[in-house]
Amino acid sequence: MGKEPITLKTDIPPGTLYMLILKTLSRGPMHGYGIAERIQQISEDVLQVEEGSLYPALQRMLIKGWVVAEWGVSDNNRRARYYRLTATGRKQLIEQTSRWDRLVQAVNRVLRPAEK
Amino acid sequence: MGKEPITLKTDIPPGTLYMLILKTLSRGPMHGYGIAERIQQISEDVLQVEEGSLYPALQRMLIKGWVVAEWGVSDNNRRARYYRLTATGRKQLIEQTSRWDRLVQAVNRVLRPAEK
Repeated sequence: MGKEPITLKTDIPPGTLYMLILKTLSRGPMHGYGIAERIQQISEDVLQVEEGSLYPALQRMLIKGWVVAEWGVSDNNRRARYYRLTATGRKQLIEQTSRWDRLVQAVNRVLRPAEK
Repeated sequence: MGKEPITLKTDIPPGTLYMLILKTLSRGPMHGYGIAERIQQISEDVLQVEEGSLYPALQRMLIKGWVVAEWGVSDNNRRARYYRLTATGRKQLIEQTSRWDRLVQAVNRVLRPAEK
């Protein structure tokens, strides 16, 4: 225990996955694989985004208008769908981050009341 | 946004609810209502545990052997079911807390790579 990666499908709520995708896209447009890879890298392999949750999440984010998709060419010269953050998506990122911070703070208050 | 309470049914994964219940019971046996009340109080009303998620969670925790239940008398002289942490439950609390800390650290690394 304690070593295995945290899979973003079963282990954390879908809202957190949205937030991580939004944050990743706030640096510039990326294709799906790149998003998953970056989240995994920056989290030092703790967070693993499975395709089975990444693409449905992106699909829902397109419908919500948080991202738009456009075709582009990836580094290895393949056509790939690039996702770009919209203004609505940027607002969502701020809201979700603030909500995440409140959640973490509240849970930590329960876990460690003395360290408050 | 940012003011409404975080409901422990829809907003955070069931694992986190288990962890909060385990932590609350680590101070001593409590009845269901008391557990919910204490989580809400310590989190300064940010976390709200609905009956509809509390009792099913306690039921699963009984089956897993993390808690045992016994009848007692509550402060207002009513018979109430008291839940008590087992040794297995105590071990679970440690494991789940370490997992929670890893998750928070990893998500925060993605959200704020510069502050690492």
